[in-house]
Amino acid sequence: MRIALAQLNVHIGNFQGNLEKMIAAIGTARDQGADIVCFPELVVCGYPPRDFLDFEDFIDLAETSIQKLAVHATDIAIIVGAPSRNPVIEGKDLYNSAFFLADGIIRHVQHKTLLPNYDVFDEYRYFEPAHQYQTVEFKGKKIALSICEDIWNVGNENPLYTVCPLDEMMSEEPDLIINLSASPFSYKQASERIKVIRANVERYNLPLFYVNHVGAQTELLFDGGSVVMGPQGRVFAEMPYFEESIQTFDLQEVMTGEGTGEQPKEKMALIHDGLVMGLKNYFHKLGFTKAILGLSGGIDSAVTAALAVRALGPENVSGILMPSTFSSDHSVDDARKLAKRLGISYEIIPIAPGYDTMLSVLQPYFGDKPFDVTEENLQARLRGMILMAFSNKFGPILLNTTNKSEMAVGYGTLYGDLCGGLSVLGDVYKTEVYALARYINKDEEVIPENSIVKPPSAELRPDQKDSDSLPDYGILDQILYQYIEGHQSPEDIIETGFDELLVRRVLRMVNINEFKRHQTAPVLRVSTKAFGMGRRMPIVGKYLA
Amino acid sequence: MRIALAQLNVHIGNFQGNLEKMIAAIGTARDQGADIVCFPELVVCGYPPRDFLDFEDFIDLAETSIQKLAVHATDIAIIVGAPSRNPVIEGKDLYNSAFFLADGIIRHVQHKTLLPNYDVFDEYRYFEPAHQYQTVEFKGKKIALSICEDIWNVGNENPLYTVCPLDEMMSEEPDLIINLSASPFSYKQASERIKVIRANVERYNLPLFYVNHVGAQTELLFDGGSVVMGPQGRVFAEMPYFEESIQTFDLQEVMTGEGTGEQPKEKMALIHDGLVMGLKNYFHKLGFTKAILGLSGGIDSAVTAALAVRALGPENVSGILMPSTFSSDHSVDDARKLAKRLGISYEIIPIAPGYDTMLSVLQPYFGDKPFDVTEENLQARLRGMILMAFSNKFGPILLNTTNKSEMAVGYGTLYGDLCGGLSVLGDVYKTEVYALARYINKDEEVIPENSIVKPPSAELRPDQKDSDSLPDYGILDQILYQYIEGHQSPEDIIETGFDELLVRRVLRMVNINEFKRHQTAPVLRVSTKAFGMGRRMPIVGKYLA
Repeated sequence: MRIALAQLNVHIGNFQGNLEKMIAAIGTARDQGADIVCFPELVVCGYPPRDFLDFEDFIDLAETSIQKLAVHATDIAIIVGAPSRNPVIEGKDLYNSAFFLADGIIRHVQHKTLLPNYDVFDEYRYFEPAHQYQTVEFKGKKIALSICEDIWNVGNENPLYTVCPLDEMMSEEPDLIINLSASPFSYKQASERIKVIRANVERYNLPLFYVNHVGAQTELLFDGGSVVMGPQGRVFAEMPYFEESIQTFDLQEVMTGEGTGEQPKEKMALIHDGLVMGLKNYFHKLGFTKAILGLSGGIDSAVTAALAVRALGPENVSGILMPSTFSSDHSVDDARKLAKRLGISYEIIPIAPGYDTMLSVLQPYFGDKPFDVTEENLQARLRGMILMAFSNKFGPILLNTTNKSEMAVGYGTLYGDLCGGLSVLGDVYKTEVYALARYINKDEEVIPENSIVKPPSAELRPDQKDSDSLPDYGILDQILYQYIEGHQSPEDIIETGFDELLVRRVLRMVNINEFKRHQTAPVLRVSTKAFGMGRRMPIVGKYLA
Repeated sequence: MRIALAQLNVHIGNFQGNLEKMIAAIGTARDQGADIVCFPELVVCGYPPRDFLDFEDFIDLAETSIQKLAVHATDIAIIVGAPSRNPVIEGKDLYNSAFFLADGIIRHVQHKTLLPNYDVFDEYRYFEPAHQYQTVEFKGKKIALSICEDIWNVGNENPLYTVCPLDEMMSEEPDLIINLSASPFSYKQASERIKVIRANVERYNLPLFYVNHVGAQTELLFDGGSVVMGPQGRVFAEMPYFEESIQTFDLQEVMTGEGTGEQPKEKMALIHDGLVMGLKNYFHKLGFTKAILGLSGGIDSAVTAALAVRALGPENVSGILMPSTFSSDHSVDDARKLAKRLGISYEIIPIAPGYDTMLSVLQPYFGDKPFDVTEENLQARLRGMILMAFSNKFGPILLNTTNKSEMAVGYGTLYGDLCGGLSVLGDVYKTEVYALARYINKDEEVIPENSIVKPPSAELRPDQKDSDSLPDYGILDQILYQYIEGHQSPEDIIETGFDELLVRRVLRMVNINEFKRHQTAPVLRVSTKAFGMGRRMPIVGKYLA
């Protein structure tokens, strides 16, 4: 038996486009001699469809897609993920289902049992868990169908769930396991995934075919990396990251053969490729081609620009340099050098005229009150205003260049440098931004060395340095990581060797700045805990604040 | 037996403050001769604590609060909601629990069974449902303890759940039901709540004591309105809306007496009082006293200002009038008249200097491209910039004045009039804003009649009217309500008598403007479906877009 895995980049709610893509993939699988072609979880509507699932009309469209796909299941069987209605009155209205289509009809449906409802996941918001488990027989083989999280409750020390759906199917003695996934990327995910697949393979002594989504849906990146593993726990094949792919595998070879094995998993390469895909897909799925951003000469805007160029092409990226009287000469030089190296167009628009006018407009009210954060923010907001004017007049999307460290402690101006339709680096700590810059420069110097080595500064007052108001990023990022990714208490963090006052100050900064993060752009998620939909905090909370 | 219900306004994460408030309430209940005092769901930490629940340290603090409260349970029993740890390895780490404290110790714990996970609720994100049900006996009475949603699965036509926790307790023949709630306000909620309480009372033929949170936690309003219902299904007492209250009831009287009955439930009065409380609590819980807002002479800013004055006092509210060359004379007159009537300070700051400067700064790049949305947005952003400069220099929070109709169709400028720390009217449709203005004016004309009767206009280009780009609000709001609150399909809405092209255009406007709503302030929730945490939509979605 030959099994094709089709890791596709579908678009949420674009039923017609997704269907066409699947039909083309069925053709490819057929050409590859596949007996079965497997698509990811909820592929007909895209993942995550979120509250679109509350619309009956949306579910009707998904059902229609399944009917239309069944027509193509003639000389090939199709396994495909879609929402389906719960016919029972009690419980939630929907299931998250795997459809087995053969002979032109729906031959079998297996619903998902384990519904993730943590971090970025809200599946229990919509779906009833499966209460029935059955394998499906095809061409003499019994297949155990599972959906994403269904295989993630094996061998954990602290399982979230009380059921193990594959355990329930083993009495039927299946020959293989197929898993349809939509498993969001983080730079740790590909390794975790393989561990979990191996735990299943070893528990059941069966081969496992795992097909994953690829592509970005707003903030969530899906890396593909579909896996075929033989019953000995060896990776037979790991499909490409961050690109569509359709590959067919012979079950007999998987049972005994060596295959091509795993791909390399270098953290910065994964983050780099993930962000490039995230940028590309955000623009493409919204129907945009052009990006604009402010270039300060600093590292964050340089890395953002470099990633945008790789995603969209230099002809589609433009930069605006907006020096103030507090900008150092090297800022403009570094930014100009970057723009030239990237081959992007740029303009230099000093903010002094706007700044001077606004100061004089405000002078009657501010009197001789001293220069403070007001005037700093005014500069940042003038830059935001200029960038948004270009965005409105010429149509590019403004990219936000804030990094995760700044986003965490609220080191940024709301409606100023926090403007933008997409936050590219909002899940990348400052120290990781440097590593990403080095990665980008690995073959040739794209990002000017000076942008990497100079002390970071917002340049909003004379001789300002980030280190005037923030701890060294090397220290700050470690504290933030323990708190944000690790959910550690202040005491836990202090115990790892950091100054008590500093730790309490940093955690307080994180918590009192929730109001800023509430109003920022969606953040491309690359870590296990990104700001945005996966981290839900009260704004008026008093905890550690 | 005498039972006290303490509907308190606690603060998320403020364990010490919440504990002090509860200890004071225990004293009051004792003075009222209560045998038992009941507090709302999760009262020790505030509701909803959201992802603070992921921190072990936060749970430790909640446990400590319960221990400290138990000390006070000597001559009075205490029923109190708090998170508790799940001692079993399998399943989620926490329960949402009701603690029964008596004789200085924890006498009994009943966990919540039905965990709402729709709209604004995420309880299945954190909590394991109860699998055990037991009443607790005190002074010869058996009490069935339940938590909020536990009583909401009775007699529904389409129940979300497959279990009914009170059914499970009835074999023990309890004498009364107590429910600890944190049930967010909408203008329909108080009526719904009484229907549900009655359905329980009638099913079990038992009296029910329902104690609810009061106060606002960021966007969520809790209206209190705790209910005591006798076994005949009569409301014995309904406690005040939108204020703290501690009242003690005699069980025997509740069984047979008439009581004081229900409160009036007039939609505009509820919305008005809810928004005033929401404003007051947002400021108070963040430690702020002063608000600022832009006054355009239009209805939205007028209503927002009037509500802010009622919440914070006229001495704490100030307005900025920022006319442009497109502003009509009456705009400034109406705004000035409003400010004088409200007794708030105001400044008039024309935006022409900033606007002219920015036009000349941008002229070399824009050339002779025609006036378009860019120049409109520029004006809105200059106003946002001026308001934020005042906010930064003097410390008030900027109030956002956008209404729900505008928020829905994206009729507003990101980083312009969409600025602000809190959206006061973002869940109030334009037609409801008019009704609210009339309600505010019911005793005397506070909001100038001209602001109510003149055609709405953004005044961002000559002779502009909202009706140039939007359908009449009377029609628009009906379409929006069917789509947003009702989840109706385009076909359903067209069938109710609206033009097909118009319906499709409006729904498309809603869906393609998700990116704007992603970046706006938290919206005080007064309806059954508000923008924000209760409505989760993909930004790149292609459905109806």
